[in-house]
Amino acid sequence: MKRTVIVDLLRRTDYGAAVLVKGWVRTHRGSKSVHFIALNDGSTINNVQVVADADAFPADLFKDITTGACIAVEGQLTESPGAGQSVEVKAEKIEVLGLCGNDYPMQKKGQTFEYMRKYAHMRLRTNTFGAVFRIRHNMAMAIHRYFHDHGFFYFHTPLITASDCEGAGQMFQVTTQNLAQMPLDEQGNVDYADDFFGKPTSLTVSGQLEGELGATALGAIYTFGPTFRAENSNTPRHLAEFWMIEPEVAFNDITDNMDLAEDFIKYCVQWALDNCQDDLAFLNKMIDKSLLERLHFVVEHDFVRLTYTEGIRILEDAVKAGHKFEFPISWGVDLASEHERYLVEQHFKKPVILTDYPKEIKAFYMKLNDDGKTVRAMDVLFPQIGEIIGGSEREESYDKLMARINELNIPMKDMWWYLDTRRFGTCPHSGFGLGFERLILFVTGMQNIRDVIPFPRTPKTADF
Amino acid sequence: MKRTVIVDLLRRTDYGAAVLVKGWVRTHRGSKSVHFIALNDGSTINNVQVVADADAFPADLFKDITTGACIAVEGQLTESPGAGQSVEVKAEKIEVLGLCGNDYPMQKKGQTFEYMRKYAHMRLRTNTFGAVFRIRHNMAMAIHRYFHDHGFFYFHTPLITASDCEGAGQMFQVTTQNLAQMPLDEQGNVDYADDFFGKPTSLTVSGQLEGELGATALGAIYTFGPTFRAENSNTPRHLAEFWMIEPEVAFNDITDNMDLAEDFIKYCVQWALDNCQDDLAFLNKMIDKSLLERLHFVVEHDFVRLTYTEGIRILEDAVKAGHKFEFPISWGVDLASEHERYLVEQHFKKPVILTDYPKEIKAFYMKLNDDGKTVRAMDVLFPQIGEIIGGSEREESYDKLMARINELNIPMKDMWWYLDTRRFGTCPHSGFGLGFERLILFVTGMQNIRDVIPFPRTPKTADF
Repeated sequence: MKRTVIVDLLRRTDYGAAVLVKGWVRTHRGSKSVHFIALNDGSTINNVQVVADADAFPADLFKDITTGACIAVEGQLTESPGAGQSVEVKAEKIEVLGLCGNDYPMQKKGQTFEYMRKYAHMRLRTNTFGAVFRIRHNMAMAIHRYFHDHGFFYFHTPLITASDCEGAGQMFQVTTQNLAQMPLDEQGNVDYADDFFGKPTSLTVSGQLEGELGATALGAIYTFGPTFRAENSNTPRHLAEFWMIEPEVAFNDITDNMDLAEDFIKYCVQWALDNCQDDLAFLNKMIDKSLLERLHFVVEHDFVRLTYTEGIRILEDAVKAGHKFEFPISWGVDLASEHERYLVEQHFKKPVILTDYPKEIKAFYMKLNDDGKTVRAMDVLFPQIGEIIGGSEREESYDKLMARINELNIPMKDMWWYLDTRRFGTCPHSGFGLGFERLILFVTGMQNIRDVIPFPRTPKTADF
Repeated sequence: MKRTVIVDLLRRTDYGAAVLVKGWVRTHRGSKSVHFIALNDGSTINNVQVVADADAFPADLFKDITTGACIAVEGQLTESPGAGQSVEVKAEKIEVLGLCGNDYPMQKKGQTFEYMRKYAHMRLRTNTFGAVFRIRHNMAMAIHRYFHDHGFFYFHTPLITASDCEGAGQMFQVTTQNLAQMPLDEQGNVDYADDFFGKPTSLTVSGQLEGELGATALGAIYTFGPTFRAENSNTPRHLAEFWMIEPEVAFNDITDNMDLAEDFIKYCVQWALDNCQDDLAFLNKMIDKSLLERLHFVVEHDFVRLTYTEGIRILEDAVKAGHKFEFPISWGVDLASEHERYLVEQHFKKPVILTDYPKEIKAFYMKLNDDGKTVRAMDVLFPQIGEIIGGSEREESYDKLMARINELNIPMKDMWWYLDTRRFGTCPHSGFGLGFERLILFVTGMQNIRDVIPFPRTPKTADF
């Protein structure tokens, strides 16, 4: 008999049909006459209830059906008398495929997330993490679907790179040399001649610059791949390895870029609302009771657009009116999350797109405004988490870009290819970056970024 | 006016409409009275022809419209008298957005692929590489769509890993230490205490083992991410950084696994036939005249399934009958590409799935058959390229798996989590791996793997 996946089984109404289900035991309670087994196979947060007459099976069998055990059940699909489920399976044949001992780390309910992180390979089998990772899958699908339907090409930028232009943070070095006997030259510097790539290489911090190469050839591209930061930050917001989405579009100006960002992020959140109802309902109940409200807040409002300068004025007015921020606020400073959230949650009560930031706090490649002071940056600010998207129109003028590079003393010797885009048929273009795990935090209501990626990499942690 | 993307423009028939197109000049030829400009914006392999009356524009303008220059054209959509195109744009306003000098590396037609690899950032703007990377995008979409529609969850396995269990090849080390002054202990070994992760870490060679963690929790998962091999192989088939797809399904046996592989790969090839017609037609004409025939060959045939042992017998018979292979063939050897291609192209004239290989030439985690000699491996063999998919049913018995691990002396100290899947509710499961670039080679007819990834990483090469 062919196995029926539980998510499909729970939708069936052909009572009396012979069915085969397989999965892991969530709970098992029995009386003298009847046993109830809640079975889950990962396809949905909902379990199917297996009902087994005690008389119909050897008593020893039930001893093996413990939480975490893997079983196969043949039986009859029947209408369920219980609340919250429409069908159950009346067992005719039960096979234990895999026993599960008492030392199963997910046996007890109500363990802390910190405890579960130590067993990241087993937390996947819990309600919460099942929900989180099904939603994570759905967000990835939404992203690919959105860009494909809008004429973007998925573009794989390299992970191992010989250039660190953006200076976006510390990088992981990549080498095949014997670390215990690194070859050094006469000055005591590393000699890379025999290393795999023949020069120093690191893991990328962003695919954007290569993404610009793609956009200025294929028109509209997006990246969706891992990026790396070797920052020693032990916070609920930082990962050493995370996934990033970076669309880049030839001929888009900053307004097109804002339109794209707003439309795109709303599409993703709406996808979650449409396709992850059971998982979201669970998280809204167990993790964050304002989750659904916050998701609706985003899709139902036009995003407010204003300049950084106007934003600073609002924040300064708030301080004058008595609002206390932890960090001081004045023109020129980078906004802290508390400032971003104030604008979104208290002042506008809408998502906000802030534009035209001081050039000093933004990257070298952003297009300079005519004022000579600000650049065409745009950050999308969300409730609860603050900045979720950061982007800009890019400086397409070779001369202006070089002037900025020289001002900042950015080493460009390995970056000739990037400058070539401004030398050969340059064009206006724009793009942005979205940290995938930031999106998953927002859509799941989880609080710690280590709980929205299957196997987090953080300082001193590279297990699994 | 809003820009019309060229792929959309070429489908329009509302002649007389005012349109705005932007893109890069492919060719420009002019006479005293009229200029013809072939414009491409990356959205399609097809150019739109811009027709400009010489009188209507300053003569200097036309001097700037060189191959590679970026221009914006406003004009009227008109029916084209020329063959092979249905519409053209009669220019009313032309703006040069970006000049392109004589040193543009893609200026000349007919450059070798080797030459173009040196300018991987600019080859993206050529017909061939535009086609290749639009098809690459489409294959990624097909993969995500297939798995999503079949109830699989996209599962992100880690890139940086502390374990090398599979021994699948040399690995890249990842470190944040100062390479010129690596801290050593008294025995002269590297002291990793101050390294980012506090222990030796490398870049993953496969996400499969973590994928098994996902499958035994979520039921059916697939990975699609970068993997790394630090092998010093300078061949048209090897990359140091490549993308891999690895589905893994709980409760699937080897037959389910073969059914999945065949259905999946046919879906991908059919997607290309359905969605990449213009690009495939170009490649079939310019790169490989049997490309389309080969793609149809795959989707139109049932794959032949036989054991390795039967395959060896056929190959030995072929040798007896006078067929010459470069490499010797006998039971126990790993098949070379020539052997695989003989089975597919000459003997069966169908794609082939070979199963039940000798355990010595396959990985430790494959399920042992009752004969004690062979394992439930399955390789899918294709015309032209040989093995395109490799997979197996996994050994789900803790005892049998440990016996094999001990036999092979595989260091498992960092692999406790993998063994846990066999300790807590173990289940039969199966999966396979597909090298994404292998698929792209097959679907594009390109010969060198460096030409189907935007920025290839190979020994001594990490440019862009």
